[in-house]
Amino acid sequence: MSPKAPIRVAITGAAGNIGYSLLWRIASGNCFGADQPIILQLLEIPQGMDRLQGVVMELVDSAFPLVHDIVATDDAKVAFDGVNQAFLVGSRPRGPGMDRSDLVAANGPIFVGQGQALNAVAADDVRIIVVGNPCNTNALIAQRNAPDIPAERFTAMTRLDHNRAIGQLALKGGATPADVEGVIVWGNHSNTMYPDVSKATVKGASVVDTFDADWLASEFHNTVATRGGAIIKARGASSAASAANAALDHMRDWWTGTNGKPVSMAVPSKGWYDIPEGLMYSVPTICHADGTLEVITDWELDDAAKAKVKASADELLKEKAAVADLV
Amino acid sequence: MSPKAPIRVAITGAAGNIGYSLLWRIASGNCFGADQPIILQLLEIPQGMDRLQGVVMELVDSAFPLVHDIVATDDAKVAFDGVNQAFLVGSRPRGPGMDRSDLVAANGPIFVGQGQALNAVAADDVRIIVVGNPCNTNALIAQRNAPDIPAERFTAMTRLDHNRAIGQLALKGGATPADVEGVIVWGNHSNTMYPDVSKATVKGASVVDTFDADWLASEFHNTVATRGGAIIKARGASSAASAANAALDHMRDWWTGTNGKPVSMAVPSKGWYDIPEGLMYSVPTICHADGTLEVITDWELDDAAKAKVKASADELLKEKAAVADLV
Repeated sequence: MSPKAPIRVAITGAAGNIGYSLLWRIASGNCFGADQPIILQLLEIPQGMDRLQGVVMELVDSAFPLVHDIVATDDAKVAFDGVNQAFLVGSRPRGPGMDRSDLVAANGPIFVGQGQALNAVAADDVRIIVVGNPCNTNALIAQRNAPDIPAERFTAMTRLDHNRAIGQLALKGGATPADVEGVIVWGNHSNTMYPDVSKATVKGASVVDTFDADWLASEFHNTVATRGGAIIKARGASSAASAANAALDHMRDWWTGTNGKPVSMAVPSKGWYDIPEGLMYSVPTICHADGTLEVITDWELDDAAKAKVKASADELLKEKAAVADLV
Repeated sequence: MSPKAPIRVAITGAAGNIGYSLLWRIASGNCFGADQPIILQLLEIPQGMDRLQGVVMELVDSAFPLVHDIVATDDAKVAFDGVNQAFLVGSRPRGPGMDRSDLVAANGPIFVGQGQALNAVAADDVRIIVVGNPCNTNALIAQRNAPDIPAERFTAMTRLDHNRAIGQLALKGGATPADVEGVIVWGNHSNTMYPDVSKATVKGASVVDTFDADWLASEFHNTVATRGGAIIKARGASSAASAANAALDHMRDWWTGTNGKPVSMAVPSKGWYDIPEGLMYSVPTICHADGTLEVITDWELDDAAKAKVKASADELLKEKAAVADLV
C-alpha cells in the first residue's frame, strides 16, 4: 500500500498550555492514526511567536515520523492555508471584572477574523472544533463569517464535560471509564450545561436505577459543572491536558466514526428540541465513518430535562445577542 | 481474546512539567499499546501533593479506557509496589552556583531511596528508565542500591539527544524524521555526549558522504549538545514535551522491540569499548521483543570517535567519584 498523503492540521493558540498538550498527542498519531502523515500549521499572536519557536524546536526534537512539515505563523491565512482539520484553541481569557458577555464580546473579533480566513483558504473538506472559550459562541461567530463552508463543519467542544461526567460515574461506581456508556452533555460549555444520565449505564446497569438519586441530582451535577475551578485550585493552573484530550477525542471520533454510538458535540442546531436554529448547541451526535454527523432527534427528555435544555439555550441566545453585529 | 491484565506503571515527579506531558501519552496507550490496561502509580514530594491531586483530577476527567486505577503518593514504597515499568523523572534541579558534582551529590539521596524502594517492592519483571538529571549517574546510584534487581533493568535516557540528532539531520537534509536511520548517541546525557553519524543515512544515502563535513563537525554537534539551553531561551521553560516523548520512545522500544535496529540507551557497561564496567553509558542497543537488550559490541570507532567515547566515560567516572559512598 502506498503511504497516505499528509493532511494539514491547524492549531491556534499553539504555544499555550492546551496547545502544548495537544500538539504531541496529534503528532504521535493519536488523533488521525499511526499511518496518517500530517503537516502542522501553528498560529499564535505576535507576542507568542518566540514561545512558539521554542515549541517548534521541541517538536523537531521529538523526531515524529508522521510530521512532514511544521508551519509557525501569526497570520491566520497562512495557518489555515489548505487546512483539513482545524483546532481553534486560542482565545482571550477572562480578565478581572469581565462577565460572560464581556468575554464573548472580547473574543468576537478574533473569531470573525479566523472564520473569514478559513472561508478564504481552508481545504474543501475542512472540519473545525472550537475549544477557546466561550467556545459555543466563538464557533457561531466563526461559522457565520465563513459562508462558503458548510455550517455543519463547525463544532464546539463539550467533550470535556462529557468526559468529566464519565470519570465521576466510573469513580462512584467502582468501574473504569470503559465501563460507562450513554452519557450525553447538552447545551453550552458553561455551568448551564446539562449532563444527562437518563440512558447512561455502568457495566451495563442503568445509572438512574442503580446510583443514588440525590448524588446524581446534586454532587454529580455540581462536580461536573464546577470542575474547571476545582482543577485551578488544586493544580494552580487551569485544565490543559484534559482539555487537549477532550479535543482529541472529539476530532478522533469525527475522523474514525463512533460505531453508531452518540457522543456530545456542539453543532449548529436545526431547531431540534426547541433549540433555536443556528445556535451551536451540544446534542447527542453519532459520527459516521464518512465524516457526516448525525444528530439523534428523538431522545426522550422529561420536563425537568427540557427546562435544563431551554436554560442553556437561553444563555446561548444572550451570548449571541452580545455579538449581534458579528453573527 | 480475553483482555490483558493491567500493568503497573510508576512515574516520579508526576506533577512536574515532564510528568504532565508523559502521563497523557502513557494513559492513551501510546507507550504500551492500545490494548494494554494500566494502573498509574504517581510519586511526588510532599510539597507537590496538592498539585498532583489536580493532575489526578485531570486524568480522571480524561476518561481513559485503559486506566484502571490511579495511585498518588509521596511514599516511594507505595508508588513502586508491584511496579512493572518505572519512569524516574523527578530530580532536584540545579540551583544557583551548583556545578555538576554538586548536582550529582544533591540527587544522590533521592536515588538511593528510590533504588532501595524498587528493590523492596517492585515486580520481578520491573524495567526502569531514569530521566531526572544527571540521569546516568542517578541511574547508577539507584541500580547499586537495588541488589536484587538485575542491573540491566536499569537504564538512563539519551533518547532526547538521539531524537535531536535525527531532527537536525532531517531538517538539514530536507527529509522527514522517518527518513533518518542509524544515528547513535554515545555516553553521558550532557554536553560530552557524542552523536555518531558514521553509519547514519538519510533516505538511504550515507550522511558522512552527502552532508557537509564542517556542518557535521561543528553546527550539528553544537546544536544537539546545547539544545536544552536554546529551548529554555525560546520557550521560557525547559524541554518538557520533547523529554517526555523521548522517555516514551525509549520505553516503547524496550516494550515492543526495535526489529533488529539499534537505538541509543544508557545501560550498565560491561567494559565494551573500554568504557569502565558498571557505568551507565549510552551505546548502540537493540531491543528484542522478549525484553532483552542487546548491546552492539563491534561498532567501528575511529580514533576521533574513541577519544569522544573516552571523554564522556571520564566525565561519568568523575560523577561517580562525587557519590562514591552511595554506589
